[in-house]
Amino acid sequence: MGDATLPKPNILLAFYQEFPAAFYDEVRNRFPDAEVTSLILEPGTPIPADAAKKAAIVVTSRSLPRPEDAKHIKFIHFLSAGLDKVIHDPILTDSDVPVTTSSGIHGPPISEWTLLNWLAASRNFNKTYEDQKKHIWGKGEDYAVGIQDHVGKKIGILGYGSIGRQIARVSVALGATVYAFTASPKPTPASRRDNHYIVPGTGDPDGTLPVSWHHGTDKASLHSFLSLGLDHVVVSLPLTPQTTHLLGAEEFALLAAHKPRGHRNPYLTNISRGQVIDQGALIASLKSGELSGAALDVTDPEPLPEDHPLWDAPNVQISPHISALGEEYFYRSFDIVRENLERSRRGEPLINAYKRGRGY
Amino acid sequence: MGDATLPKPNILLAFYQEFPAAFYDEVRNRFPDAEVTSLILEPGTPIPADAAKKAAIVVTSRSLPRPEDAKHIKFIHFLSAGLDKVIHDPILTDSDVPVTTSSGIHGPPISEWTLLNWLAASRNFNKTYEDQKKHIWGKGEDYAVGIQDHVGKKIGILGYGSIGRQIARVSVALGATVYAFTASPKPTPASRRDNHYIVPGTGDPDGTLPVSWHHGTDKASLHSFLSLGLDHVVVSLPLTPQTTHLLGAEEFALLAAHKPRGHRNPYLTNISRGQVIDQGALIASLKSGELSGAALDVTDPEPLPEDHPLWDAPNVQISPHISALGEEYFYRSFDIVRENLERSRRGEPLINAYKRGRGY
Repeated sequence: MGDATLPKPNILLAFYQEFPAAFYDEVRNRFPDAEVTSLILEPGTPIPADAAKKAAIVVTSRSLPRPEDAKHIKFIHFLSAGLDKVIHDPILTDSDVPVTTSSGIHGPPISEWTLLNWLAASRNFNKTYEDQKKHIWGKGEDYAVGIQDHVGKKIGILGYGSIGRQIARVSVALGATVYAFTASPKPTPASRRDNHYIVPGTGDPDGTLPVSWHHGTDKASLHSFLSLGLDHVVVSLPLTPQTTHLLGAEEFALLAAHKPRGHRNPYLTNISRGQVIDQGALIASLKSGELSGAALDVTDPEPLPEDHPLWDAPNVQISPHISALGEEYFYRSFDIVRENLERSRRGEPLINAYKRGRGY
Repeated sequence: MGDATLPKPNILLAFYQEFPAAFYDEVRNRFPDAEVTSLILEPGTPIPADAAKKAAIVVTSRSLPRPEDAKHIKFIHFLSAGLDKVIHDPILTDSDVPVTTSSGIHGPPISEWTLLNWLAASRNFNKTYEDQKKHIWGKGEDYAVGIQDHVGKKIGILGYGSIGRQIARVSVALGATVYAFTASPKPTPASRRDNHYIVPGTGDPDGTLPVSWHHGTDKASLHSFLSLGLDHVVVSLPLTPQTTHLLGAEEFALLAAHKPRGHRNPYLTNISRGQVIDQGALIASLKSGELSGAALDVTDPEPLPEDHPLWDAPNVQISPHISALGEEYFYRSFDIVRENLERSRRGEPLINAYKRGRGY
């Protein structure tokens, strides 16, 4: 009697495009005790009632079940770190279905994207690349002046989550020092710990890498942080009403005013959302040289219109919101789903669980 | 009588071009007890007898004193890590004037150059750059496939000196594992230590970062190392008769044959000398896809002729022997000179001393 076969729980992957066959195979291998099905849906299209009602777990980017169809869903996993694009959906506002995110898996690719942009800017990669296309063996003088490495540089990280922590890890390896800025105070070892999923061997699990921690939600706290003499400012904050246009003319001027002697002017990196930056002010600061450059994976709006002046601002490097992408993205997301399936079976709290009401 | 002023020792900087005035000021600040003079000489031109005879210390790239003029020189400091370009000069073959090098200062810039090239290749930076020039907001699909980060990748480093060690440090921060290969065995903690000058906060002073150490001077040892399933091979060996054409068709085939499943093909980085690689074989391996790419700061010959096929080999990134350059280069060199001036005054052994007869 005890050996009656239980139906395998259904994991529904609702995505806007087909994955390669090898991917479905690999995912199924990770869930020998579950049935994995797939639906291709235009982003934003709700998951049809029959599919939603059969699902134990939904894994999705922008397609959600209606609350009335979600009564048996154990959790919905979002294939993104932030939920700002779905925050007003009824499943978030009018249901209590547990929601989890892929927060934590973005550290490695986004830190590599960040480092790539810093180094391309600081080491004049575009010149090397253009010279090679023309078969020109450049002169050493062109590289001896104006190029500095990261030893002793100060890296300020706004938002010290999994992304900021892996950027910190790499920065410290380069010989730089890291300064963390968070909304709420983190005075104790416990408060500095990273409680999200962490890609093994990366990040700053115990929060020991920053030489100092700073916090606040008011202008004065932010300005005091931006006055530390930073060479880099990295924006890895969630977009909320409070962080909208957090950095503008005043903040860029402050950064430049505290630039260490002999160093290049401060460099801005945004891997959060375009709206965190006052983009007009950014263009002005790049033009004046107040900022020595900026790496932007996000803009306002997206896609950035073809005739937008940001494209040609001096020393800006723009990519089309791709810093988190890579072949590992979905595999790592399913590592979190697997972990949470096991936790759910054991009746333990889920990791990467979204707290309703926090607004991001 | 005891207070008769001793003449200040003369530090002669013999270089092929003028430095900015601020540089001479800064160097003089570092040597309040010495007189710093400067000579501009075409590379290879000997230092005139009168200048050489007055010098206590010579700091130079390619201009050397004649042995008969060097009797009072306490040491000659070379502004490079390797001495292969001056190894047959009489001052090295027919004198015993101590010779020191700038070995140790190259870790930060060259590791940053290395990382830049890895990331530009792995994250498709050239597409991002070309798209930005054309104001094109690219598609996520173009980045989701083919891009992998460095978590779990295996980095093989041939020659584990200061450069290899800083590359190791950054690689480990990325989540990769490091394998060291050296000519002689390094079985003990003492033998794994870095005894050169180390830029503070960088490198692997105790040699604890590699997951395993390998060694040998024969083909079999090298081939066994190249069979570890490496994703990256970094050449940071000195050029000697034994390392000339160390890597060729057989080695590239071996690397490709052991590529881990699902990973890109192995990537070659050369920051040593062009002659360590069989360049014809490299071009063939890039064309066949056996190697997924190569970052070359050195070529054979240099400058690389405009019509050389290497320029357009698939997935090759070539820079004109500039990976070590940057504004810190000469300051850090003078940090070593200052350290050795103090050691010389105290009668202690010099750091970064060249051992005659070793051949590099």
